[in-house]
Amino acid sequence: MKDIRIIEVKQSVFASNDKRAAELRNELKEKKIFLLNVMSSPGSGKTTTLTGIINELKDEFRIGVMEADIDSDVDARTVSKLTGVEAIQLHTGGMCHLDADMTRQGIESLEDKDNYDLIILENVGNLVCPAEFDTGAVRNMCILSVPEGDDKPLKYPLMFEVSNFVLINKLDVIDYFDFDLNKCKENIKYRNPNADIFEICAKTGMGIKEVSDYIRNLIYDWRK
Amino acid sequence: MKDIRIIEVKQSVFASNDKRAAELRNELKEKKIFLLNVMSSPGSGKTTTLTGIINELKDEFRIGVMEADIDSDVDARTVSKLTGVEAIQLHTGGMCHLDADMTRQGIESLEDKDNYDLIILENVGNLVCPAEFDTGAVRNMCILSVPEGDDKPLKYPLMFEVSNFVLINKLDVIDYFDFDLNKCKENIKYRNPNADIFEICAKTGMGIKEVSDYIRNLIYDWRK
Repeated sequence: MKDIRIIEVKQSVFASNDKRAAELRNELKEKKIFLLNVMSSPGSGKTTTLTGIINELKDEFRIGVMEADIDSDVDARTVSKLTGVEAIQLHTGGMCHLDADMTRQGIESLEDKDNYDLIILENVGNLVCPAEFDTGAVRNMCILSVPEGDDKPLKYPLMFEVSNFVLINKLDVIDYFDFDLNKCKENIKYRNPNADIFEICAKTGMGIKEVSDYIRNLIYDWRK
Repeated sequence: MKDIRIIEVKQSVFASNDKRAAELRNELKEKKIFLLNVMSSPGSGKTTTLTGIINELKDEFRIGVMEADIDSDVDARTVSKLTGVEAIQLHTGGMCHLDADMTRQGIESLEDKDNYDLIILENVGNLVCPAEFDTGAVRNMCILSVPEGDDKPLKYPLMFEVSNFVLINKLDVIDYFDFDLNKCKENIKYRNPNADIFEICAKTGMGIKEVSDYIRNLIYDWRK
């Protein structure tokens, strides 16, 4: 395995992140690159989930992965090792989120940047700030894991408002936590009636095929 | 149970949060009020842990609690119901952290604000931003729960650097997760060799007495 490249991305000096995000989205559309932004709390299983999804989709789509963290390169290493696709680590210099220009810097650092069908951005683990910044992604995916509790959509409204689909992860341990699955879904729908919801267990692979099929359809629909 | 009061706190217009935090700390010292700032990821068990600690200490100290969240008042309700101490909910207007002036606004909203021995601030669930802002607290406590993973100190360095003591929570489910307790402690010590570490399970009460005794000693030492 090659050494993981670590890219130090810097916050934009441009005032209008929304404008920069729209520009990036348009450029990616012209290149037919679907950018997926993945958000969640720390430790909700983003990397394990993505590894499963990538392994389902990698024969059909050319995939590049950007793993954002404040420090360490453990996630890019994991994705690279378990999937074989190009994965780079983005360091945010302490920043709690990625904006559109930071995302662009990441994409431009991918070796095969113009030739991907799907680029996945694993945002900084944080249920607050990443939701405030459009990265230029076509879709936002959020993961909420059972141990975090079914009340999270009540406490972190924007994250669930901006997420097009939500994966409820770690279903394998639901018996050990006070977690009401129906209540959780209600809370997600309360914030975002249009959100699609999936029940998964990234560790065992449960539900990963369904989410992968859904993402496949998103990509084909978007290409039309 | 009385209705929970919800206070909308606003970010400071003052440039120097550090200065404002030092001022607040000095004022509280004069009043002999120990302010404890509690930080963690969303869903790591802050509220359950605090409920246990408060019930251990409430006969000895007059305690007030401020529960910060972007939305909802579920935490203040829980603390008030399970401990009987005064608990208010602080809403941050979407902000991802509390600064010293937001903390001050919260303290001034407590009914019995000048007569507490211990005021506990449960910060917004976020492993990034709260670590960047001194609230004026005497001590920072961080909770890391088993389902989040033992690598979190590697990814969120500042949180563990600024935390005086760290509770590793949800030890009851350690068998169901790939969590290396010794590795986790090493990772915490790598970020902060002086951090005191406790193993707890807030749900079953394991370790809560030890942490409460530790906080009791912190308060008495600080008063000397």
